Amino acid sequence: MSDTENRMTIICWSGDLDRVWPQYILATTGASYGMQVTLFCTFWGLFPLKRPEVKITGDNWMTKMLGVANNERLSHLNFGGMGPMMMRTIAGRHNVAPPEELRDIALELGVKLAPCQMTMDLMGLTRDDLIDGIEEPLGAAAAMANMQRSSINLFI
Amino acid sequence: MSDTENRMTIICWSGDLDRVWPQYILATTGASYGMQVTLFCTFWGLFPLKRPEVKITGDNWMTKMLGVANNERLSHLNFGGMGPMMMRTIAGRHNVAPPEELRDIALELGVKLAPCQMTMDLMGLTRDDLIDGIEEPLGAAAAMANMQRSSINLFI
Amino acid sequence: MSDTENRMTIICWSGDLDRVWPQYILATTGASYGMQVTLFCTFWGLFPLKRPEVKITGDNWMTKMLGVANNERLSHLNFGGMGPMMMRTIAGRHNVAPPEELRDIALELGVKLAPCQMTMDLMGLTRDDLIDGIEEPLGAAAAMANMQRSSINLFI
Repeated sequence: MSDTENRMTIICWSGDLDRVWPQYILATTGASYGMQVTLFCTFWGLFPLKRPEVKITGDNWMTKMLGVANNERLSHLNFGGMGPMMMRTIAGRHNVAPPEELRDIALELGVKLAPCQMTMDLMGLTRDDLIDGIEEPLGAAAAMANMQRSSINLFI
Repeated sequence: MSDTENRMTIICWSGDLDRVWPQYILATTGASYGMQVTLFCTFWGLFPLKRPEVKITGDNWMTKMLGVANNERLSHLNFGGMGPMMMRTIAGRHNVAPPEELRDIALELGVKLAPCQMTMDLMGLTRDDLIDGIEEPLGAAAAMANMQRSSINLFI
Repeated sequence: MSDTENRMTIICWSGDLDRVWPQYILATTGASYGMQVTLFCTFWGLFPLKRPEVKITGDNWMTKMLGVANNERLSHLNFGGMGPMMMRTIAGRHNVAPPEELRDIALELGVKLAPCQMTMDLMGLTRDDLIDGIEEPLGAAAAMANMQRSSINLFI
């Protein structure tokens, strides 16, 4: 198998718990089987790369409202914010690791987590607001160059 | 054309009517043109594989709440549950087959419908709760091996 | 690089502002780097190809209700319709072009915008209701033939 056939790039667009899970499950599974995996984290998908203590606050009423996105949510069955906790509990009972743990496993397995530069600018985030161990911020062109060399490309 | 170029794998993550439709339209179109098509049904995307009479009930208040997902919905314009019925009626007038019919056509055309084992565990579903004619439950590793051999991979 | 490796097909299923943006950012970035890019606009993703003055009105109460989709929305943080305006303002301050402008750039760069025939039928739209410069309506089979020749396929 050539190098091209053994790469996967996932555009992680969503920060919803029920989409972050498949992002990381696919990433860690691929890396476990020797694939070179890159997660390009853009739009709402940048939120899971924030340090937990960093909140989007903004310097005006509009960016301040983005702060609502600080709270974890499900795309469906959110139940006013209780859905994510319920889903985490059900998963825990079945020994499915939470996303934070899968993210750490991903980093250990060599998965590249790349934040989107444009999204960082829009959200007013700097590199210091993001967790350790991730890649330098990338633009869309770099993400696309990566996808051209990948056998599996997904938008999640 | 090599075997690799003639395969399609769709990760069917959503059970929303407006996403189930493209899942099955793409699957049946591909199979009609001779592609080997696999639908890996995971998360909310497992619901369309349930037998209609099987409801998620759960053995505690949390899994019981998942039962809300028994009702069909649209991601958008759901109108408190009336949206799906409206959309079905509009589609029927234009001779667009409903998803259940497309699913039966897909099975006749040899499309492989594979339920995700982990999701079945989380939802408390067994093989007997799912419709006939589908594949044995798969894990993420098997889904990924399939994607590596596919020329078209989509997450819907 | 062969012709096959230099093509990208995006199934533009969503008309939500926060998904239209990545659709066009990826399309224009790809085209800038010499890729042959096709956007297959289906379901809610057909709305951005409507002429602004064309509204979905329908000839009965059901298709009339689809008219609600005339209003721009975000998948998340919609804030009763104010979210899109806020997001546009924040983007404007950071010199991120609005989708309409990116769409014009895409057309200039040779990106093919193809409306889905079935969706047009369901919405009651004719070719005259859509903007200039786009392709003739396509069916799913044509979209799939395009994907088979593409190195990057995404469903957004």
